[in-house]
Amino acid sequence: MLDTIEFAAVVASAIYGVLRAARKQLDVVGMVTLAFAVAFGGGTLRDLFLDRHPLFWIANAHYPVIVFVLGVVGSVLPRHVARVERLLAIPDALGLGLFAVVGAGFALEAETSLFVASVLGVVTGTFGGVIGDVICNEIPSLFRSSPLYATCAFVGAWTYLLLGLTAWPQAVAVTGGIVVTVLMRLAALRWDIRIPSRESEVRDQKSEVRNEGADL
Amino acid sequence: MLDTIEFAAVVASAIYGVLRAARKQLDVVGMVTLAFAVAFGGGTLRDLFLDRHPLFWIANAHYPVIVFVLGVVGSVLPRHVARVERLLAIPDALGLGLFAVVGAGFALEAETSLFVASVLGVVTGTFGGVIGDVICNEIPSLFRSSPLYATCAFVGAWTYLLLGLTAWPQAVAVTGGIVVTVLMRLAALRWDIRIPSRESEVRDQKSEVRNEGADL
Amino acid sequence: MLDTIEFAAVVASAIYGVLRAARKQLDVVGMVTLAFAVAFGGGTLRDLFLDRHPLFWIANAHYPVIVFVLGVVGSVLPRHVARVERLLAIPDALGLGLFAVVGAGFALEAETSLFVASVLGVVTGTFGGVIGDVICNEIPSLFRSSPLYATCAFVGAWTYLLLGLTAWPQAVAVTGGIVVTVLMRLAALRWDIRIPSRESEVRDQKSEVRNEGADL
Repeated sequence: MLDTIEFAAVVASAIYGVLRAARKQLDVVGMVTLAFAVAFGGGTLRDLFLDRHPLFWIANAHYPVIVFVLGVVGSVLPRHVARVERLLAIPDALGLGLFAVVGAGFALEAETSLFVASVLGVVTGTFGGVIGDVICNEIPSLFRSSPLYATCAFVGAWTYLLLGLTAWPQAVAVTGGIVVTVLMRLAALRWDIRIPSRESEVRDQKSEVRNEGADL
Repeated sequence: MLDTIEFAAVVASAIYGVLRAARKQLDVVGMVTLAFAVAFGGGTLRDLFLDRHPLFWIANAHYPVIVFVLGVVGSVLPRHVARVERLLAIPDALGLGLFAVVGAGFALEAETSLFVASVLGVVTGTFGGVIGDVICNEIPSLFRSSPLYATCAFVGAWTYLLLGLTAWPQAVAVTGGIVVTVLMRLAALRWDIRIPSRESEVRDQKSEVRNEGADL
Repeated sequence: MLDTIEFAAVVASAIYGVLRAARKQLDVVGMVTLAFAVAFGGGTLRDLFLDRHPLFWIANAHYPVIVFVLGVVGSVLPRHVARVERLLAIPDALGLGLFAVVGAGFALEAETSLFVASVLGVVTGTFGGVIGDVICNEIPSLFRSSPLYATCAFVGAWTYLLLGLTAWPQAVAVTGGIVVTVLMRLAALRWDIRIPSRESEVRDQKSEVRNEGADL
């Protein structure tokens, strides 16, 4: 069942990678590479870290074909891609939740600790995007003050791990982890929930000081 | 035979890495690191993805020594290096073709699909340079509008793979893949063949609109 | 014994990663990620390159917990972190020496050549920082003209490797390698010892030319 989930996550992430490349106005080579990086980056790190071979996109030989086609189509139909951009949030949140749960699940199979499993869930869910950002020469959006992202994967992975400790069937844990991640991510986007950054704290303190009439 | 080819590709790539570092005016540490990254980056990813151990540069213990020496020499003789710069195209094209064919060949040995093999050929041929660019904090030249590069590796890898399906000896497939890659790359450099980028399309459309006297 | 050493190196590196993230004003997600990257990056590359599984931070399941806590604490107490900044040199030099020796030691266990072992020592010691810099979208400080760093790891690794060839006990080689790295690094910081860069050479030549009254 984890494998079925993975397929949906790959497609969602590849589309996200294509949109990412379209925004950067990369050519078809860049678009395909970025689709690969975002779709396979996190899962590849997970497989390498856990010594799972063949890698999931080598074992599922249709994955690279699909991602390749998505990249090529994206480069041919840029306007249509731009129009899809507003729909980005849903597949992205879904991919995040799916990868986080699958990553944590594979880690448990390799008998890691619960905490390491949660870390691998977050890595699987978010590092495709981080690698894409690094390749695009940008500071990963993961680190800029933006609506909760990695945090959702972390909470979702833990939901899955803790539900897995109960007597309930595995499907409940998987579904629970994914649903929590997706809902939390969509809520973060909807109400712009962010981690209060130190920078804004400093700014707040500065304005307080200003209100007291002190110089800086 | 694939191993013999690899040696030539490593030397060519290391020289390319040294020239790359010289242009960035890196010191000897940066020059050696970049020589390592460009020469070993693509092949290391290939070996990790295919679970080939020991890695090719650990198994061939003279590779790192040679690359190290090239890096040190390059940092001591910068002017001589700069003079070699115009000769860059040939060893680079050769390295691209060699790595693409070797990468696809090793993938086939690991019983991947043909498409995955072609992807690993491209990764082996081009990702040394991508990693070098990422380390140098530049958007990989692979993605900027520039003469065909990854595309040549892709076509060369497929030439090798399809020739390998025939009854002809393996050497024909290997030679064919390399020759096609090298010729295509040199032709792309000579006549400045690029992938038409969406940006230029947009520009073309804009000028068309302008010609019709419309405002933007 | 190498394992005990590794623990100290992980803590030192994680603190370095946290300080690095604090300077960049990253939020808690970025701080934790950077702490992970700097603390585990070099060792993870070493383990992947040498096919050592489970990875050292999966086998030592308390490592990620400690690094995670350091990252969270660092994001909550930024001012205290900033105050620690001046103390950065010591744990960093220690981590460099420890990782260089451990990396070279693990490579020898995998029966690599001495030179490959020294390369893996340097990679283990320095690539956590390189990965951190790349993620932060900066040219690795390793490559900018700055007090000797990778060079210290290189010399320290060779000290360990050569002492290991003698009849003296292993502990002497380990201690020797670490002490040489640390002393060399602290000396480089104290007296600002750098690799003379080609840029400064060029500048020197330019000023010579100017002194002769020539135009550029």
